[in-house]
Amino acid sequence: MATPLIALITDFGWKDGYVGAMKGVILSINPSCQIFDVAHEIEAHDVTGAALVLESVFPYFPPRSIFLVIVDPGVGGNRRGIVVKAGDKLLVGPDNGVFSLVLQSCAFEAYEITEERYMLPKVSATFHGRDVFAPVAAHLTIGVRPEQVGPRLDPTELKFIPMPMPRKQGQETIGQVIYVDRFGNLITNLKQEDFRGEDVLIEVEGEEIYGIKRTYQEGQPGEVIALWGSHGRLELAIREQSLKRTKGWSVGTEVRVKPRPR
Amino acid sequence: MATPLIALITDFGWKDGYVGAMKGVILSINPSCQIFDVAHEIEAHDVTGAALVLESVFPYFPPRSIFLVIVDPGVGGNRRGIVVKAGDKLLVGPDNGVFSLVLQSCAFEAYEITEERYMLPKVSATFHGRDVFAPVAAHLTIGVRPEQVGPRLDPTELKFIPMPMPRKQGQETIGQVIYVDRFGNLITNLKQEDFRGEDVLIEVEGEEIYGIKRTYQEGQPGEVIALWGSHGRLELAIREQSLKRTKGWSVGTEVRVKPRPR
Amino acid sequence: MATPLIALITDFGWKDGYVGAMKGVILSINPSCQIFDVAHEIEAHDVTGAALVLESVFPYFPPRSIFLVIVDPGVGGNRRGIVVKAGDKLLVGPDNGVFSLVLQSCAFEAYEITEERYMLPKVSATFHGRDVFAPVAAHLTIGVRPEQVGPRLDPTELKFIPMPMPRKQGQETIGQVIYVDRFGNLITNLKQEDFRGEDVLIEVEGEEIYGIKRTYQEGQPGEVIALWGSHGRLELAIREQSLKRTKGWSVGTEVRVKPRPR
Repeated sequence: MATPLIALITDFGWKDGYVGAMKGVILSINPSCQIFDVAHEIEAHDVTGAALVLESVFPYFPPRSIFLVIVDPGVGGNRRGIVVKAGDKLLVGPDNGVFSLVLQSCAFEAYEITEERYMLPKVSATFHGRDVFAPVAAHLTIGVRPEQVGPRLDPTELKFIPMPMPRKQGQETIGQVIYVDRFGNLITNLKQEDFRGEDVLIEVEGEEIYGIKRTYQEGQPGEVIALWGSHGRLELAIREQSLKRTKGWSVGTEVRVKPRPR
Repeated sequence: MATPLIALITDFGWKDGYVGAMKGVILSINPSCQIFDVAHEIEAHDVTGAALVLESVFPYFPPRSIFLVIVDPGVGGNRRGIVVKAGDKLLVGPDNGVFSLVLQSCAFEAYEITEERYMLPKVSATFHGRDVFAPVAAHLTIGVRPEQVGPRLDPTELKFIPMPMPRKQGQETIGQVIYVDRFGNLITNLKQEDFRGEDVLIEVEGEEIYGIKRTYQEGQPGEVIALWGSHGRLELAIREQSLKRTKGWSVGTEVRVKPRPR
Repeated sequence: MATPLIALITDFGWKDGYVGAMKGVILSINPSCQIFDVAHEIEAHDVTGAALVLESVFPYFPPRSIFLVIVDPGVGGNRRGIVVKAGDKLLVGPDNGVFSLVLQSCAFEAYEITEERYMLPKVSATFHGRDVFAPVAAHLTIGVRPEQVGPRLDPTELKFIPMPMPRKQGQETIGQVIYVDRFGNLITNLKQEDFRGEDVLIEVEGEEIYGIKRTYQEGQPGEVIALWGSHGRLELAIREQSLKRTKGWSVGTEVRVKPRPR
């Protein structure tokens, strides 16, 4: 069986030594560890963004994958460090909600990281990614079990981030933009179960969008379109343009869907 | 013999889950696959930029390398997905011209991807990188042959991107900037065979550049210089500055070369 | 024993083919080489930044790691290419000071790269990362010893970058900002040995900071704080904000520390 791999999601970017220090720590513990970069340009301190990115990649990785997710504005304070068995995969990182979207849809067991033997000998107050989480993840690749890192937590103790839920108002379903991707496409909190049919009128800041397209190319140049994006969520876009830049819409922008008037 | 590796070129950036989802899919099919990140910050939708980046790295990779190149504004529409045997390497991605610079200079065989058994069970209309191309590339690393992914295409059926060609006008050779790199250096479509000798006068938007330097450092601070860059093309630069930012020149800017007047 | 790994630090970014070409060259020489991306978004031509990033990751990597560090504005000129045995690790890159912070704190032996058999057959004047340093590093992973790449250099011959040193003035210790990280935190040249006690008053451009915090979260929103950062240096920050953007302070900004008045 393949050795477990580590997949990295951070807001560390590629200009500093933060990503590299974590890799060095992992390789010092398991020199043949496979490490894969998933995302490092998460907006600084954007726990929700990291949670959404994790949710979007989680189902595609093989069993036994370990996700090391470090977006950690509360480092050194009283937020816990945790290891979570989530289905047949493992999550390692701060207990600040970064795992909560994934954990909404799978059985899990969570453990608080307290065993110092799996951390670096000297733990800084500002970089637990390097000093706590990377060494714990590396130990998990060489046979340490989640139960060994510390006491089991009651699932209700974990921090969950409040995701805005769509609401109904008469015939309308009202959602909002929850994420903007690199292309300037806007991902909403609306899923296919949230409204019936595709013959809808979508209103965003006074702009009207009719119906749901299948692909970006079905939009005319400059036309705002809606489609079911690869996140399984309703997505707003302009073909080969940044909708975010064109209209200034962003996270929090309200999206109203109603049956198309006849 | 080493197992085939996969080299990734995309315009997905490092903030979203797109790169990670592709890696997860590959590793779910071949858990010991070697995956190398080549470039992920290609300008959004810039097929020509991706084609130039691929051209610049292609000769340096070992035989049996598989290039997975996903710059795919037409995803979900009627553009084909293809696997191409190019010399002793393989290319996987959309048939939108992204491979055309490499294919101009080597023998190749192209196959249209139609066999659903090598795709994910559910194929979205907006992310074939994850649902079609990554799983096909992964299968190619574990023994599936290009011929198995679908019918062979006539080479003339492939989409080629029109690259502007240098032209002659009297004693002048007129080319243009085709790519701007991270440093703000401008790469042109002029190659060494396009004009004779290095004792030339180069004119760009009224600015005159005399002769061709060997290294960036031979330029004086602030001086625009021309040299034969690592792409094998005439390159314009300012030592330790961004020429793009300094002069505002960019893709399409005309570059006229003529023998230096005496 | 694990095969030596190569860790990459460059200012090449992720939009061009430069990182990929180096990886291809390495894999053509050693197809099973483990290559790890440490940092590629070092500011263009910022040798000092690269030196600081290298210093921050160097101790965390396992023995026999090879750091390939390419920030090389003088490429093709008369700066040397070198291989350095630094403790139980190896450094490969231009002799422009990029290694000098690491070399200040460990025993080392340096060799000038002159043996053409370890370079690519054709060496360009503008991209030694690809044509000289990557192939040399790859050969070091397959048994070539540093002594074989060329003549040993006297340590005093190596280029050292002048790092500004803190100075004393009466009761004050005067340092400066030497690096800005992705979060906009400002890293200074002040280390714990530079002043006594933490009951200090820190002055930066007329702004007064009292005492030294342990974590970012101990700051109030908007408050400029000082703490001992993960680089082992005094760091200035604003909790969950970019201090660089907020105050406009950057590399070179003076930081004065004195005992807190009573």
